[in-house]
Formats: sequence, structure tokens, C-alpha cells
Amino acid sequence: MWAASPAFRRRLFLLRSLSPSPCAALPGNAACSSSPSPSTSIRVNAMSASGPVYEADAEAVVRRITPPLDRARHKGQAGKIAVIGGCREYTGAPYFAAISALKVGADLSHVFCTRDAATVIKSYSPELIVHPILEESYSVSDGERESVSSRILTEVAKWMERFDCIVVGPGLGRDSFLLDCVSNIMRHARQANIPTVVDGDGLFLITNNLSLVEGNLLAILTPNVYEYKRLVQKVLNCEVNEENASEQLTALCQKIGGITIMRKGKADIISDGKTVTQVSTFGSPRRCGGQGDILSGSVAVFASWARHFLLTNEYPTEKSVNPMMLGCIAGSLLLRKAASHAFEKNKRSTVTTDIIELLGKSLEDICPAGH
Amino acid sequence: MWAASPAFRRRLFLLRSLSPSPCAALPGNAACSSSPSPSTSIRVNAMSASGPVYEADAEAVVRRITPPLDRARHKGQAGKIAVIGGCREYTGAPYFAAISALKVGADLSHVFCTRDAATVIKSYSPELIVHPILEESYSVSDGERESVSSRILTEVAKWMERFDCIVVGPGLGRDSFLLDCVSNIMRHARQANIPTVVDGDGLFLITNNLSLVEGNLLAILTPNVYEYKRLVQKVLNCEVNEENASEQLTALCQKIGGITIMRKGKADIISDGKTVTQVSTFGSPRRCGGQGDILSGSVAVFASWARHFLLTNEYPTEKSVNPMMLGCIAGSLLLRKAASHAFEKNKRSTVTTDIIELLGKSLEDICPAGH
Repeated sequence: MWAASPAFRRRLFLLRSLSPSPCAALPGNAACSSSPSPSTSIRVNAMSASGPVYEADAEAVVRRITPPLDRARHKGQAGKIAVIGGCREYTGAPYFAAISALKVGADLSHVFCTRDAATVIKSYSPELIVHPILEESYSVSDGERESVSSRILTEVAKWMERFDCIVVGPGLGRDSFLLDCVSNIMRHARQANIPTVVDGDGLFLITNNLSLVEGNLLAILTPNVYEYKRLVQKVLNCEVNEENASEQLTALCQKIGGITIMRKGKADIISDGKTVTQVSTFGSPRRCGGQGDILSGSVAVFASWARHFLLTNEYPTEKSVNPMMLGCIAGSLLLRKAASHAFEKNKRSTVTTDIIELLGKSLEDICPAGH
Repeated sequence: MWAASPAFRRRLFLLRSLSPSPCAALPGNAACSSSPSPSTSIRVNAMSASGPVYEADAEAVVRRITPPLDRARHKGQAGKIAVIGGCREYTGAPYFAAISALKVGADLSHVFCTRDAATVIKSYSPELIVHPILEESYSVSDGERESVSSRILTEVAKWMERFDCIVVGPGLGRDSFLLDCVSNIMRHARQANIPTVVDGDGLFLITNNLSLVEGNLLAILTPNVYEYKRLVQKVLNCEVNEENASEQLTALCQKIGGITIMRKGKADIISDGKTVTQVSTFGSPRRCGGQGDILSGSVAVFASWARHFLLTNEYPTEKSVNPMMLGCIAGSLLLRKAASHAFEKNKRSTVTTDIIELLGKSLEDICPAGH
């Protein structure tokens, strides 16, 4: 079902989109776009850890990894995503992440949150499956902690293998008991080989406990400027260096064992410690809260699509591409396009829901459903 | 109020839509469409249990069974539907089923669910009547079980005779106490001769307790690919056979005593153990969760309309048609049309709510309200 014409395959958009070689800027260059030798990916890796950051051919990535809509497919085959987040204080963020996953094209989107949050998140939309199973310290006595923690893990674990990707962090809060439970969930997801996008308070959690993501090649961190600063301070023991941004990001990824990080900003810079690229398509000057949640939900869907695409792809050169990088590139572009459309329509009054409503149109513009 | 012109009646759309005879494909064939002999339905039965599956003339069925909108009618006369489902975990599914029933044209739509689910389902829409009366094990002590179970049955029973059809299963969950209570409700509905559509977790319930539907000619099962597989394994003690799909479905219906089953898939195949037909109008390649709930709510309305139509119809040949089959045919077509319109508009970002919004237009296209 992922088949495409051989001619299309040979264009190897994926490699070109990540490659820092000059041919990346020359879409018509036949010497670069056909029959690459097995050394292509090695060259990419060797060249890209330093020097200028090349813009990803993000539209090509979106088109390449987005699965065709096949009439013979069943519910769930276009992706099942889960968001771990939502507490007494925050309910919008997990909703934004989960509904964005559906609007990008996932078939099913779950939220695992506290009881208080569940009623509200459910009421935002009947499209989500919301599990009211997390607990905060105030609702658990000291004596109950162990049994409650174990029950929560059992509940989530029975669902885990069905998910193609999980998002940890939107609206998670910082309650210590809840974060302990979520740490267990992250360890379980890792054992089950489930890709994990970490954002918001999930980044607070892992910054204080790096072993949760260390060496996990299926982990993606999506820090904003403040979260990135804390991460650099903690891991590299220095301040953010804007002049050597890509080298510092690359070093950070390497230090955490080859995880993928998308440093959000004017341009989103993305690295897995080997390759570095960026997406700088202009989005919107409006900075309403919630856009990071859209991004994490979208990245989750694209990363799972990219992973599936590469696992079922027969071109060995494409197999060496990191699907987590592709997920970031695609998610970044889509949010930027949708934010741009939403701002054009709503100007200063643009809110996150307006952007979510335009995810579908933005994807359709890049990658028509009938392609 | 169900009157139509004698000429229109004589066209006997219903029989033609189910008949595998060649005249089914020839709408203008006077020999087939006038004065059918009493043997017509027997021939239909005898011919259709094996061989190719014929496409139902589903548009004709929708037009024939949809009641005219008569100014003299009162609230409730176009149908009163109840959905039994909705628990702590699931609230979207019962909402989708119940609101779809209203959007197809029922006058009143009820939901019987747990207390946790009720607040949320009520918040989705003020159009539904939501009864917070079911209980899950966690909220009932062992000593209370019998009295709570009895109270739940009494509560539902006092409403039951008002309903034209009930839908059991959307978002029901799998709690053992709740399923025991729902088993009692199903037995009561059967005694009261209320047609019953079983979907989702309702299928899990009846697969483990076939006596709940065995021999109930007013029962409709609407399994998806996984639910159908479990049903075949349990009842026929074998695997799904795609090469003889219609024969196997027919055998399954017979084995459960002549109930109606719609096997959902690329084409929806429908049988009552005597007749088999299919609806394969293309809907949408999008497989977002919730479409099955739209279908169960729509089938409930159409089955009750078909039953009323046939009970008040004076043509003996039409009386032999199974209204549960007609309900499935009509519901299948309407969902497919609505999903097609919704996909055309929303592409990959299509979600269940988008499809529900187009049920009305889809029905209007087939069967204008002024006809």
C-alpha cells in the first residue's frame, strides 16, 4: 500500500531533503537524484555535523512519508496516537495535541490524564478517547502510592502496543507523584519500541532525569527557547551559543545518546547528532499559546508514518534516514503553513483552534489526498 | 400516513432491491415490477443463499422506507431511538450513535450510560436525553449488586416500550457488572419486541453469550473485520473464509437463529440467513474511529422505519421482506454517501463529526423531504 512509481522512488526526496550537499538545492539535478551509491548516507552524516544548516526540502518529505489513502485499509492503519498529559490545572494542551493528530490524518487519538482533566477534555470533543487514570499527589495517600502507581502502569501498558507513537508532556503539570508514574510509562514505551515525542512538562521531567530518554533512538524532544536553555545548561553545562547553534544542537543530541531534538524558534533546527537541518518557512507572527501542542501531535503522526514508510521501503539508501528527523521536518512545515493560513484569516485574533482547523487544508495543499 | 400512490407501490422497490433475479437490474421491466406472485419471496430466498452477492438497490430502499413528512404527525412518530452505552472510558461513541439517529430523522434520541459518562455526553449536545443510570463494578459493592442491577432494569424498562429501536454497545466498555446489567436490558427489549442493533462492545457481550440474540428476528449485528472474525470463530468454529464470504455469512446468521448480520468492510455484506445482499457504494478512504457508531444509529432509525412501513403495508409480497435487512441496506448507503461528501470537503482531516453533519444532505439528495 506504500508503493509508488519507481521513477518517483528514484528521486529519493528523503535523502535530498536531509543532505547538505549542493544537489539538495537543485531539484532537477539528475546526477544527485538517481541511483545514489550506498555511501550517500555516510557522506550526509560526515558532512552535516558542522558547517551551515541546510533548509530541509520539507514539502518533499511530507509528500514522501504521507501514506496513500487506500480503500482496502481498516480503522487504525493510518495511525493510533496517545497523549500522556492533562491534570487539574491544564486541559487545553493535551486536547490540542490529540485533536491535531486526528486532523493530520491519524485514525485514533487517545489521551491519558487525571480524572479532573478527563471530563473537560472529553467535553471538548467526542472524537478523542480519554482515559481518566493518572493521579496527582493530593488524591493519593502515602500508603497508597505504590499500588496506585502500579495500577496506572498496568492500565496504560495494556494499551501501549497498539500505539504508533506517544506524546508525553502537554499539560502534564509538575506534580511529583504524577511525574513518577509518567516516568514508568516512558520506560514501558521504550521497552515496547514505541516512538515518543517529549514536549512541555515532559521536558521538565527528562531534563531532571536524562536516563528516561538517553540512547533512545525513537525519542524526539521539541524544546522551545526556555526549555532548550535548561537542557543545554543541564547536559552541556554551558549557555546557549547562537553563533554555533547547529554544532551545539548536534553535540546535545550526541550527549543524550543520539536522540532527535527539534529546537523550536524562528527556524526550527532539527538534529539527531549525525545530521542537522532546519525548517524556516514563515508561519505566523502571532504567538498564541498552544502551537507547540499542535506541533507535538503532528510530529507524532508524521514520525509514525515515516517509520512505517522506511520499515516497508525497499531502497537501502532510504533505510538509513532517521524517521524521527523526517517526522520533525514534516510536523514543523505543516504547523507553519497552517499558522500562516490562520493568521491570514484571523489576524491578531488568531487562536490555536483556528490553526488546527487549517491543518487539513495545509496538508491538502502540499499533498493532495488523491495523490 | 405511509400512503403512497398505487403506481409507486407497484414498483416494489423493496423486493427488487433484494432480489437476485435478472429483473433486479432492469428497472423498467414491467413483467417483474407488476403483480408479483406470492412465490417471489420464496424464489429470492432459495436463490440467494449461495452464488454471487447482488448489490442492493439501496437508494430505492431508502426512498421506499423513509416516511413522508406529514404535518399531522406528532413528536415521536418519526422514531424514538435509545443507545445503551457510555462508560467512564468512552463517551464519544454513544454520542455519535445517538446524534446520528436524530440527524437521519428520528424525533427523539436517548442515551443510557454511567453517571461519569452522562455529564460529558450531555455536554456534547442538548439535543439528546441522557439517563445516568448504568453502573460499573468500581462503584458498586458486592452486597449491593443485586439491588442495583434490579433498579437499573426497572429504570430502563419503564422507558423501553416507547422506543422503536435500541442500539446496544457503542462505548459500552467491558466491565463485567455493567455487561450483566445490559444483558438484562437486552432480554427485556426482546420480550417487548423492540428491534435491537448490536455493535462495538455489545458484540463482545453477545459473542460470549449467544443466547442473548439467538433466534431474535429483530436483532441486527454490525461487526467490523475483527468482531466478525471472533464471531465466526465462536459460532462456526472456523476461520473467516473470504472466498465464500456470502455463504459463510448466511450460515452464521442461520446458526444464530435467523438474526440479521451486516458484515462491514469494503462492501457491507448483509444477510438474515435466507437472503444475502451487499452495498458497495464507495464512501471514503479515511478510517477515523466513530464511523461504526454513525452506522449503528442510522441503521436503528431505518430499521424502525422499515418495520413500520411493512407492518402498515397492504402488499403481501412486501410483507415477506425482512425490515432488519432494509434497515441495514439504507444505513449502509447513507453513511457511505455522507462519508464521501465529508471526505470531498475535509480530505485527510475528516473526522466523525464532519460526516454526521452531512447525513442530512445525503438523505436529502436521495430522498427529498418534499417527495
